[in-house]
Amino acid sequence: MEKGEKIVKERDIFDSISPIDYRYWDKEVAKFLSENGFTEYKLRVELALIKTLHKRGICSKEVVGEVEKACGQVTTYEVYAEEGRIKHDIRALVNCIQNKVSDKAKPFIHMTATSFDISDTANAARFRDVQTEIVIPELIKLEQILIEITLREAETLQIGRTHGQHAEPITFGFAMVEYVSRLGDCIQSLKNLVPQIIGKFSGAVGAYNASSLFFDDPEKFEEEVLSELGLKPAEYSTQIIPPEPLMRMLSELISTGGILANLSRDMRNLQRTEIGEIGEKFQGEQVGSSTMPHKRNPISFENVESIWKILIGDLITVYLNQISEHQRDLTNSAAARIYGEIVGYLVSITKRLTKTMKKLKIDKKSIGRNIEIQKKVIAAEPLYIVLAANGYTNAHEKVRQLTIQAQQENKDLIEIVYEDTNLRPYFNSKIPQKQKRMIVNPVFFYTGIAAEKAKEIANRWADILEIEVKI
Amino acid sequence: MEKGEKIVKERDIFDSISPIDYRYWDKEVAKFLSENGFTEYKLRVELALIKTLHKRGICSKEVVGEVEKACGQVTTYEVYAEEGRIKHDIRALVNCIQNKVSDKAKPFIHMTATSFDISDTANAARFRDVQTEIVIPELIKLEQILIEITLREAETLQIGRTHGQHAEPITFGFAMVEYVSRLGDCIQSLKNLVPQIIGKFSGAVGAYNASSLFFDDPEKFEEEVLSELGLKPAEYSTQIIPPEPLMRMLSELISTGGILANLSRDMRNLQRTEIGEIGEKFQGEQVGSSTMPHKRNPISFENVESIWKILIGDLITVYLNQISEHQRDLTNSAAARIYGEIVGYLVSITKRLTKTMKKLKIDKKSIGRNIEIQKKVIAAEPLYIVLAANGYTNAHEKVRQLTIQAQQENKDLIEIVYEDTNLRPYFNSKIPQKQKRMIVNPVFFYTGIAAEKAKEIANRWADILEIEVKI
Amino acid sequence: MEKGEKIVKERDIFDSISPIDYRYWDKEVAKFLSENGFTEYKLRVELALIKTLHKRGICSKEVVGEVEKACGQVTTYEVYAEEGRIKHDIRALVNCIQNKVSDKAKPFIHMTATSFDISDTANAARFRDVQTEIVIPELIKLEQILIEITLREAETLQIGRTHGQHAEPITFGFAMVEYVSRLGDCIQSLKNLVPQIIGKFSGAVGAYNASSLFFDDPEKFEEEVLSELGLKPAEYSTQIIPPEPLMRMLSELISTGGILANLSRDMRNLQRTEIGEIGEKFQGEQVGSSTMPHKRNPISFENVESIWKILIGDLITVYLNQISEHQRDLTNSAAARIYGEIVGYLVSITKRLTKTMKKLKIDKKSIGRNIEIQKKVIAAEPLYIVLAANGYTNAHEKVRQLTIQAQQENKDLIEIVYEDTNLRPYFNSKIPQKQKRMIVNPVFFYTGIAAEKAKEIANRWADILEIEVKI
Amino acid sequence: MEKGEKIVKERDIFDSISPIDYRYWDKEVAKFLSENGFTEYKLRVELALIKTLHKRGICSKEVVGEVEKACGQVTTYEVYAEEGRIKHDIRALVNCIQNKVSDKAKPFIHMTATSFDISDTANAARFRDVQTEIVIPELIKLEQILIEITLREAETLQIGRTHGQHAEPITFGFAMVEYVSRLGDCIQSLKNLVPQIIGKFSGAVGAYNASSLFFDDPEKFEEEVLSELGLKPAEYSTQIIPPEPLMRMLSELISTGGILANLSRDMRNLQRTEIGEIGEKFQGEQVGSSTMPHKRNPISFENVESIWKILIGDLITVYLNQISEHQRDLTNSAAARIYGEIVGYLVSITKRLTKTMKKLKIDKKSIGRNIEIQKKVIAAEPLYIVLAANGYTNAHEKVRQLTIQAQQENKDLIEIVYEDTNLRPYFNSKIPQKQKRMIVNPVFFYTGIAAEKAKEIANRWADILEIEVKI
Repeated sequence: MEKGEKIVKERDIFDSISPIDYRYWDKEVAKFLSENGFTEYKLRVELALIKTLHKRGICSKEVVGEVEKACGQVTTYEVYAEEGRIKHDIRALVNCIQNKVSDKAKPFIHMTATSFDISDTANAARFRDVQTEIVIPELIKLEQILIEITLREAETLQIGRTHGQHAEPITFGFAMVEYVSRLGDCIQSLKNLVPQIIGKFSGAVGAYNASSLFFDDPEKFEEEVLSELGLKPAEYSTQIIPPEPLMRMLSELISTGGILANLSRDMRNLQRTEIGEIGEKFQGEQVGSSTMPHKRNPISFENVESIWKILIGDLITVYLNQISEHQRDLTNSAAARIYGEIVGYLVSITKRLTKTMKKLKIDKKSIGRNIEIQKKVIAAEPLYIVLAANGYTNAHEKVRQLTIQAQQENKDLIEIVYEDTNLRPYFNSKIPQKQKRMIVNPVFFYTGIAAEKAKEIANRWADILEIEVKI
Repeated sequence: MEKGEKIVKERDIFDSISPIDYRYWDKEVAKFLSENGFTEYKLRVELALIKTLHKRGICSKEVVGEVEKACGQVTTYEVYAEEGRIKHDIRALVNCIQNKVSDKAKPFIHMTATSFDISDTANAARFRDVQTEIVIPELIKLEQILIEITLREAETLQIGRTHGQHAEPITFGFAMVEYVSRLGDCIQSLKNLVPQIIGKFSGAVGAYNASSLFFDDPEKFEEEVLSELGLKPAEYSTQIIPPEPLMRMLSELISTGGILANLSRDMRNLQRTEIGEIGEKFQGEQVGSSTMPHKRNPISFENVESIWKILIGDLITVYLNQISEHQRDLTNSAAARIYGEIVGYLVSITKRLTKTMKKLKIDKKSIGRNIEIQKKVIAAEPLYIVLAANGYTNAHEKVRQLTIQAQQENKDLIEIVYEDTNLRPYFNSKIPQKQKRMIVNPVFFYTGIAAEKAKEIANRWADILEIEVKI
Repeated sequence: MEKGEKIVKERDIFDSISPIDYRYWDKEVAKFLSENGFTEYKLRVELALIKTLHKRGICSKEVVGEVEKACGQVTTYEVYAEEGRIKHDIRALVNCIQNKVSDKAKPFIHMTATSFDISDTANAARFRDVQTEIVIPELIKLEQILIEITLREAETLQIGRTHGQHAEPITFGFAMVEYVSRLGDCIQSLKNLVPQIIGKFSGAVGAYNASSLFFDDPEKFEEEVLSELGLKPAEYSTQIIPPEPLMRMLSELISTGGILANLSRDMRNLQRTEIGEIGEKFQGEQVGSSTMPHKRNPISFENVESIWKILIGDLITVYLNQISEHQRDLTNSAAARIYGEIVGYLVSITKRLTKTMKKLKIDKKSIGRNIEIQKKVIAAEPLYIVLAANGYTNAHEKVRQLTIQAQQENKDLIEIVYEDTNLRPYFNSKIPQKQKRMIVNPVFFYTGIAAEKAKEIANRWADILEIEVKI
Repeated sequence: MEKGEKIVKERDIFDSISPIDYRYWDKEVAKFLSENGFTEYKLRVELALIKTLHKRGICSKEVVGEVEKACGQVTTYEVYAEEGRIKHDIRALVNCIQNKVSDKAKPFIHMTATSFDISDTANAARFRDVQTEIVIPELIKLEQILIEITLREAETLQIGRTHGQHAEPITFGFAMVEYVSRLGDCIQSLKNLVPQIIGKFSGAVGAYNASSLFFDDPEKFEEEVLSELGLKPAEYSTQIIPPEPLMRMLSELISTGGILANLSRDMRNLQRTEIGEIGEKFQGEQVGSSTMPHKRNPISFENVESIWKILIGDLITVYLNQISEHQRDLTNSAAARIYGEIVGYLVSITKRLTKTMKKLKIDKKSIGRNIEIQKKVIAAEPLYIVLAANGYTNAHEKVRQLTIQAQQENKDLIEIVYEDTNLRPYFNSKIPQKQKRMIVNPVFFYTGIAAEKAKEIANRWADILEIEVKI
C-alpha cells in the first residue's frame, strides 16, 4: 500500500485473483478468517485489555464503555487508510480507536501491549473459534453421512480391491467405514488440539518489559487479559507465540483434507464407466460436458482431490514459518496470512463432499456384476491357506499353478481341484465343513467379519461424536 | 455454488480470505488473472473461433460482428448465474453468448470446440500476456535499479562474508552485481519460455474428433484459430494442453522469487543493528514499531522473504498437477486456479523491492568500520597462498597458528610475521612487490577484480535488456 | 532387482548415493531403520504369530522353538536372493523361514497372514522402538544442555532483537529458554504419540477373511499376536494400517527439526563477525577454511539448518502417501521407505547440536558491547508507555521525534527529555520512581521478568523430563 | 564424524538406511554420484588446475605427472580419515594429494583455489556427465519403446476417457504417443540444459582475490582451468556457482519423473480387473501376492508413482537451497548432497518402466469389449455438434435428453433419433453422408485423426532423437 493511495472499499468479486475469494469463498469462514474478521478479533483483544485494566482499578467503567463503543465502530477500511499514512498496521488500529474516545480514555488504549500481543492473540482466538464453530461441526456432518451409508450398506457384498485388482470380498459398508474411522480419529484429534491454541501478552520481546512498568505480577496480568477471551497464555513467548501448537492444528487439517481426497479418489474410481458401482446424482438441468451430453463426470470428487493439492502446498508454507530469528523477525507475517485459506478450502471440500455423498447413488447391479468377474479364482487365497494349514506341502505354489490353469481353461478353481486326483480326496477328507463352504462359495462366505465390523465401528463413532443417525 | 444460489456481485474487499485479494492485490495483474480476466480471455477464444469459421467461409461477416458485440457484453456475473443453473462453466459461457445473438448466429458459437479448447487456450494467452506486459517489464525495472546501485557502488570497499564471517574484501557493487547477473539470467529465461506457451483446439480427447466432422485438415484449422490469438498449437494435446511448458514458466517465476528473497535476506542482514551497512529509508510519518519508536525495521525485505515461502508451497501444487489420467481428469482444475496467485505475488514483491532498493540508504561509515574489524588477520589468505606458492612447507598450518597468535596478542598479522625470525627474511626476500602490497594492506589491495567485474556485468545486462541506466 | 541378478553383500560405504549412508549414518538408528533392521522386525512379527498359534493350542512348543531358531538365522541377503527369484518380498521371507524348519512346522509359518500384516506391524514396532530408545533420549540430552545454559546465563544481560534490530533488553538465559520450552513441548508430544503407533493382523483386505477360516474371534486373535510385540491393533485397517498415526509422529519429528534449525539460525547469527556473542569451540587441529586460516565458521549450526531442508521436503512425501486406493495400492511402498531417513537425519542433527551446544563459547564482552549500542534510545519504549499512561497526549509520536533528535544529536534520549522544557517538569513530577529508574537505566532495569522466567521454565522442564541438571 | 573416530570401509549393504542404497542403487549412477564419484571428480579438478599451471609455465611437466599419479591413488576413505583429524573436507583432500607428491610439487596443489572452486566445479562436471552418459540415453531407450508401441498400436481402436468416463474413441497408439511427445520434449529440454551447467574458479568470495595474486587475467585463468574439464565459467560466482542452472536441470528431471508417473498411473488404471486392457507380463516363478495366488499386481507402475512422490519432496529441498547469505553460507551443503538421489531415483524408474513397457501385454479383446460399453450413446457428441451446426435450436439440450432416454430404454441413441418424428426427417435430409457415418458408427469412424497423428508424432521423435525403430 502506497502512502496516500486511495483504498477501494468494494470490488467486483470476480476481480479477485484467488479462487478462495471468487469460487470457494464461504461466508461463515470469512466471518472469522477474512481481514474484516481479523480486525474484529484484534478489537476484541484491545477491549479485553481495557476490561482487565478496569478490573485492576486502573481505568474506570466509563472508559470500558467508551472503548467498547469505539471498537464497535472501527472498520478495516479505516484502519487501512490510517496504515497507508503511518505504515504500521497495529498502530493504525490503535489510532482509529483513540480517535473515537475521549482524551481521558486514550492513554489506556493498547497500554503496555506490543503489536503481536494483539495480532497473535487475535489469531489464536479466531482460529480456535472457526474450529469450534465451523470446521468441526461440518466434519461431523460429513461423518454422519458416512456412518449412515456404512450402516445402510453394511451387508452389501462388494469385491475388495488391492493394487486395483480384485482381491477378496468385503461389503460396501466395510469399505466406507474406513473413512468413518479415519475421519472420526481426525475430528477427535482436532478437538484435542483446540484447547492447546494459546495467546500471549508478554510484550515486545516476551519478557514483560512494558507490563513490568506497572505490574509486579505481569504473568498474572497476561492471564487475566487472555481469560477475557477464553485463552491460556503460552508457557513462553517471544514477540510472538511459539508456532508449534498452530502448526499441529494446521497439519491435522491438511491431513483431514487428505482423508477426504482419499475417499474421493475411491469414489471416482468406483464411478469409472467400466466399474460403475456408484455415481454422483445429477440435478435436473446439470450438464456433464459441454460437448458430450451423455457424460456423468465425478466433478465433485475430482474437485476435492484438486483442492487437496493446494493444501499440500500450503503445508510447506506453514512449516517454513517455523523459523523466526531471535525474539522474532517478520518473515512469517505475510506467509501466515494464508492460513485462513487452509481452513477455507477444507470447509469448502467438506461441505461439497457432504452434499455429494448424501445423494450418492449406489448401483447394486454393477457391484454384483463386478464381484462375479473373478468368482472362479477368488477361492485361491482360502484354498491355499487351508491346504497349507493342513500340512499340504508347497501349497502356495500349487494353488498358484491351479489358478493359472483355471484361468487358461476358463473353469472354476474348485472344478480344477475336484479334477485333480491328488487333491480331491485330500480336499474332501481333510477340510472342515466351515472352511469348505468358504472355498466353494467365497463370494458369499469368505468375507471375514466385514459386515459386523462396519456396523460396530460406525455405531461407536456415532456414540463418541453424539451423532443421531438417520437410517 | 449451489443451484439457485444468489451470487453477490460486489463485496467489501476486506471480506476476502486470501491476502492476494485484500493486501497484495494488483490491478494490472487482475486484468489478466482475475476471474474477470479469465472470462475476457475465454470470450476472445470463442471469438477467434468465429473469425476462423468466417475466414473459411462457414459463417458470414455479420455473424462475426454479432458475436464480437455479444462477447463485449457477457459478464462473469452472468456466466456464474447460468453456471449455477446448469452446473457447467463453459456451457454457461456459451449459453450467455448465444442469448445475445440471433438464431442464425447461434450454431456457430463454440462449434466443434470442447470446453478445454477454450479454457486452456485462454489460460495460455493470458499467462503469456501477463508475462510480456507486466512481469518481465517489472523485473526489468528492478534490474535497472540493481544495475544503477552496482555502478554507483562498484568501488565502495566492503568486506566479503562467508558463513556470516568476514572473509576477503570485495566491493558493495560487486556484491550487488550477483543479483544483476542472476536476475538478468532469469529474465532471459522467462523471455525464452514465453513463446513456448501453447494453445490447443483438438477437441474432447485431443484427436480432433469433432472438428473432423467438418474439416479434412483439422490440425490446420486448429492452427488458424490459435493464430488469431498469436499462439501455436501443442504438438500433442489430450483434452488439455500438456502441462510441462507452463510448469517451466511457473518454476522459473518461483525461482525468480527465490532470487528476490535471497537479495532481501542479504539486505536485512546488512541492516542488523550491529552491521548497519544499509537501511530502508523511512517516510516522514512512518512508524517502525507500535511500542519502540526508535526502530527501523526491514519490513519490506522481510515481506519479500515471507511471500517467497508462499511461492515455494505453490510449487508443489504446480508439480502435483502434472498427473492427469488418460485423456484428462479434472483434478488439476481447482488447483490450477492458484497459478494466478503465483504471478500476483511475484509482481507484488518485485514492485516492493524496486521501490525499496530505489531508496536504499548505504551507510559508508558503517561499511568502513566493519571492514576494519578483522583488518589484522585478513591477510591470512594471501599470506598462506604466497608462502605456499613459494614452497614454504606447511604454509596453511603455519599461517593458521600465526593468526591465532595475532588474535591472542591483538596484533596485526603482518607484525607477527615480521617478529618471526624465521619468516621475516623469507618474506622480505622471496615475495614479489605486488604480492607484498596485497598482504600488507589487504583491505585496499586484496580485492581481486571486484570493481571491474561489477561494472562489466552491470553494463552487459544493461545492454542485453536495453536498459538506459541513470547514474 | 532383476531375476537371477547377483546381489552384492558388502560394499564400500563411499559407493553409497545417499548422504544418510556415507556421511550421516548412525549405527544406533540403523539397528532399527536399515533394511537389516526391517528384516529383523518382520521376523519378530512372524514369530509373534507362531507364539500366538501355540498359545491357542494350534501348534506345539517345539514348532515355536524351531521357528525362533530359524528366525535367528535368516538374513536380509538370503531374502533378497529369494525375492530375486520369485519377485515378492514377504513370500521370499516366508520361504526363507520355511527352508529352515521341519515339514511339520512349515504350515504354521505366516498362517492366515497377508504380507502387510507383517510389514506394517514390523514398521510400527520399529518406529515405536527407535522413538523410545534413541530419538527421545537424544532429544532429552539436548534439552539438558539447553537447560544448563539457561540456568547458567539466566542473569546475563543481552539485547533482545526483533527484525534483526535491537529492541529491549533480556538475558541470554531468557533467549535460550525459548528452546527449552519449545523442545520440551515437542518431546512431550512425541511421548504422547508413541502409544498411538498401532499394528494390524486383519488380512489382505482388512476384513479378517483368512483368519476367519480358523477363528471365530479374529479380532481377539489379532490382539493376541500384536500384544506379543507390545502393540495395539488399529481400530480399522485395510490391507494396511491407516497412515495418520505415523504421519503425526513424522510431522512432529520434522517440526522438532525445525526447532533445532531455528536455534541454529539464532546461534549462527549471534556468531557473525560483527555480533560475536557466541562461538563454536574449535578443536586443536580443526581447519576453518581451506584458504582463510583465520575463519571460525559455524558449520555445525549451518549443517543443522541444511538438513532441516531435507526434512521439509520429506514432509511432502509423507503427506502424499496418505492416499491409497480402495483396500490399498502400492504407491506408498517405495516412498515410505524414506521414513527411516527422517529419523536418521533428526538423530544426526540432534547429536551434533548437543555436542556443539555443550562446548558453546559465550563471549560476555561482546554481549556487553552490543547492548550498549543503542543504550541511548532504548528507553524510547518505556518512556512512551509511561507518558501515554500518564495521559500525555500523542506520546508515541512525541517520543518518535525525540528519538530521531537523540540519534541526530548523538545524545542520550534521557538528556533530550531533560532539555525539553515542556517534558522535564512533567517527567520529574508525574513519573513514579520505579518507572523512572527503568527509563533512566533501561539496560539494567527494563528487562521485565526475563531472568526469573528463564529459571522457572528451565527448572519446570528439568522436573517434567526428570533431567538431573549439572551446573 | 568425530575426531579420531574409526571409519569403516565396507558395510553390509542392508545396513543402509536409504532405499537408494539397498534397493534402488545403480552402479552406473554411483560411478558419478556416490561419494567415491565425488572424490574422483574433485581430484580431476585439482588435476585440471595443475595442468593449467603447467601450460602457463608455472610448474613443470614432472609436477603434472606426479599429481596425476597421486590423484589416481587417493581414496575417499583416506580423505575421510584425514577430515576426521582436521575437520575440513577439501583441506583433507589437499593433504592427501600432497602426502603423495614430492616437496617440489606440493606448493602447486590447490594453488589459489578455494574449497568450492573444487567442489562446485566437480559437481558441475559430474552432474553434466551423468546426464549425458546415463540419464539421457536411458530416457531415449524408454522413448524408443513408447514409439514402438505407438506405431504398433496406432490403429488399435480404444475408447478415450475423460474424468474416468468413456468419452470419444481414439486409438491405443494415440494414447501412447502423448508420452512420446511429452517425454521427447523433456529429453530435448534436458539436452539444452546440459551445456548451461557451469563451473567456477573465482576464489573464496568470487572476486578472484587469490588468483589475482599471481595473474593479471584471472578470468582467463579460470576459463583455462575449466576448459580442461569441458566446462565454461559462470558469468558471476560468489564462493559458489549461482544455483539456478542446476535447479533448472533438477526441476526438469523431476518433471520428467512426473511424466513417467502419469504414464504409470494410466497403465495401472488400464490394468484394473474390470478394465483389463493391459498387463505387466509376469515371469515364470513370480508371485503376485503372498496370499492371493491369482493376483497380477501392477507393481512396477505403482513403484514408479511411489518414487515420484520422493522426487516431489526433493524439489522443495532444491528450491530451499537457492538462498545463500552474502558470499555464501553453508546451509546448502548437506542438503545439496541429496541431488544425486534425484538422479538415482529417476534412472531407477526409467529403467524399470522401459523393462515393463517392453513386455507390456495388450489385451485387444478387453479393449474391444470396453469400447462397446457405451457404443449406444457415444454418438451424442457428433450428433449434437452436427445438429447445432445445422441450426437445430437447442441441440445440446435436445441430445442430452435423447441420451438419457437411450440409457433408460437401453436403446442405441441412433434408434431414438429415428423414432423421433421431429428429428428423423431432419437427420435424413440435412446431414451430409460423411457426418452421418460418424454418427451411426462412431466407434469406427468418429476417431478424428488419432491414428495418423500417432504415427506422425512417433516418427518425428524417432527422427529428432535418431532412434532406430524396431517394429
